[in-house]
Amino acid sequence: MTQRDVLISEVGPRDGLQSIQTIMPTAAKKAWITATAAAGVAEIEVGSFVPAHILPQLADTAELVAHARLIPGLNVAVLVPNFKGAQAAVASGAHKITIPLSVSETHSLRNVRRTHVQMLDEVRQISALIRSLPVAERPHFEGSLSTAFGCTLEGEVPERRVLELAVALMEAGCDEVGLSDTTGYANPAQVRRLIRSVWSAVGRDQLTGIHLHNTRGQGLANVVAALDVGLTTLDASLAGLGGCPFAPGASGNIVTEDLVFMLEAMGLRTGIDLDALFALRELLQQALPDEPLYGMTPLAGLPKGFVPASFMNRQP
Amino acid sequence: MTQRDVLISEVGPRDGLQSIQTIMPTAAKKAWITATAAAGVAEIEVGSFVPAHILPQLADTAELVAHARLIPGLNVAVLVPNFKGAQAAVASGAHKITIPLSVSETHSLRNVRRTHVQMLDEVRQISALIRSLPVAERPHFEGSLSTAFGCTLEGEVPERRVLELAVALMEAGCDEVGLSDTTGYANPAQVRRLIRSVWSAVGRDQLTGIHLHNTRGQGLANVVAALDVGLTTLDASLAGLGGCPFAPGASGNIVTEDLVFMLEAMGLRTGIDLDALFALRELLQQALPDEPLYGMTPLAGLPKGFVPASFMNRQP
Repeated sequence: MTQRDVLISEVGPRDGLQSIQTIMPTAAKKAWITATAAAGVAEIEVGSFVPAHILPQLADTAELVAHARLIPGLNVAVLVPNFKGAQAAVASGAHKITIPLSVSETHSLRNVRRTHVQMLDEVRQISALIRSLPVAERPHFEGSLSTAFGCTLEGEVPERRVLELAVALMEAGCDEVGLSDTTGYANPAQVRRLIRSVWSAVGRDQLTGIHLHNTRGQGLANVVAALDVGLTTLDASLAGLGGCPFAPGASGNIVTEDLVFMLEAMGLRTGIDLDALFALRELLQQALPDEPLYGMTPLAGLPKGFVPASFMNRQP
Repeated sequence: MTQRDVLISEVGPRDGLQSIQTIMPTAAKKAWITATAAAGVAEIEVGSFVPAHILPQLADTAELVAHARLIPGLNVAVLVPNFKGAQAAVASGAHKITIPLSVSETHSLRNVRRTHVQMLDEVRQISALIRSLPVAERPHFEGSLSTAFGCTLEGEVPERRVLELAVALMEAGCDEVGLSDTTGYANPAQVRRLIRSVWSAVGRDQLTGIHLHNTRGQGLANVVAALDVGLTTLDASLAGLGGCPFAPGASGNIVTEDLVFMLEAMGLRTGIDLDALFALRELLQQALPDEPLYGMTPLAGLPKGFVPASFMNRQP
């Protein structure tokens, strides 16, 4: 049994691919998912159940869930924008369903054309659907508070709104809430503060993960803050896939490779084999030859004599 | 009087310029130093007193010290590799003199062709020289423990060696020691641990600053760790000047712009005007048209409605 101190949720196949124009062939996605799991990644967000005309890059999500479910021990996660997407997600057999709720209502209207009230109604419908299933077949249902650290449209997002919506999501039937720095606005002090506040509002077990972006280079700094407080699930994307085109070197999501290196160096076990993870970049580059790959550790190499925490006890 | 919670020491004119082949004209360096101070940076490492045939990029250090000393309130710092360099530094009137002592003796021999014993002898000579000056004219004298977090030649550097050499530097007459992650090997857990250990060995007031690199993307994460423990002086380089050519996107020093954004967002006052800092990049690009500039915040822009901590109380 692999021991893990931190769960890395690889969101590249969803957040990475939805941010680029190129459509990755389904076979390449399957190979990526298989190799990612083989490298020791225990959770992968394989896609999003959105209409194909909106995100053709993710049109094969059901097929990817079916593929990923065959990998022993892998937690197969998907995103859904609404009840209809959740129906497809449930039908596909995904283990975890995340619905984003933008704390900025302006962003919510722009992104999914729904108010908070309308989104919470979708959440209630999804919860009812999940509860209608036999207990053993129910997916884990997360409500992710996007733009929780600020919004490019509204600017500062009041902490009070984040807490109100965290409570509303739990009351509407989510198993858990998540925090998402959609805009790359978060700073370490705010990360610590907001996690503690959300814990006070909904309970410590109801927030375990955070989705950080690296738009302003603050991704890993914010991870340190999240770890300090006690979060244990971190989203990241291989090679920072889907980086911001306006900011060279600025990946969108935090780079899985740099994150895993940091955690393993800190003595926190991820269960992930860094060399196998680095090797995955080649697979990604072949499938997406025109996309830039981010991440510094794979290029700089591991420190001389480096022993990752996950493999310390396995040394002879 | 500017209130500062953290002192940023801009090392671009020294560490940045020594890492690139292009020689920046002295006039451009002076303009850079002047504009950096005008942006609110209170300490600048303007150069290094090394023989011109070794680092022709820094041959004008004495002239830069003379220039920088005319800027009111600016702490003018220089690096010296040995006693001879320190003589020149003292003659120039620098306010702060830093001598690096590589914890890895292999690295020390490779870098300055001196053993630890020989380097400590240089330190003693420098200390005697400084103590021969009238108190008011004595520069602050720092011994910087380079490769303190690991060495590309020796690999892991025993913490015991770091502590022994920290004590030895203080006994040889330094006013203070510094920690330097020359190789970009440091991780946040190690940063916290080593700072506390050095404090135990030499006293808390004898270590206030850290010099971090971003080779593996861990720079700001390590800053968070250093701040947590209580360090208050951070080295950084504008635009991450002198980035590692083998790792695109990997700056050498941490990027001043991203660091200042993080600190100000966290509520820590640097006294630095972010917009003025961003504007400096153009000056740098004009003087070094072939060098890549790193840093994400200047390209992504500040968050909508962002108010830096340094300017909060100045709002109407």
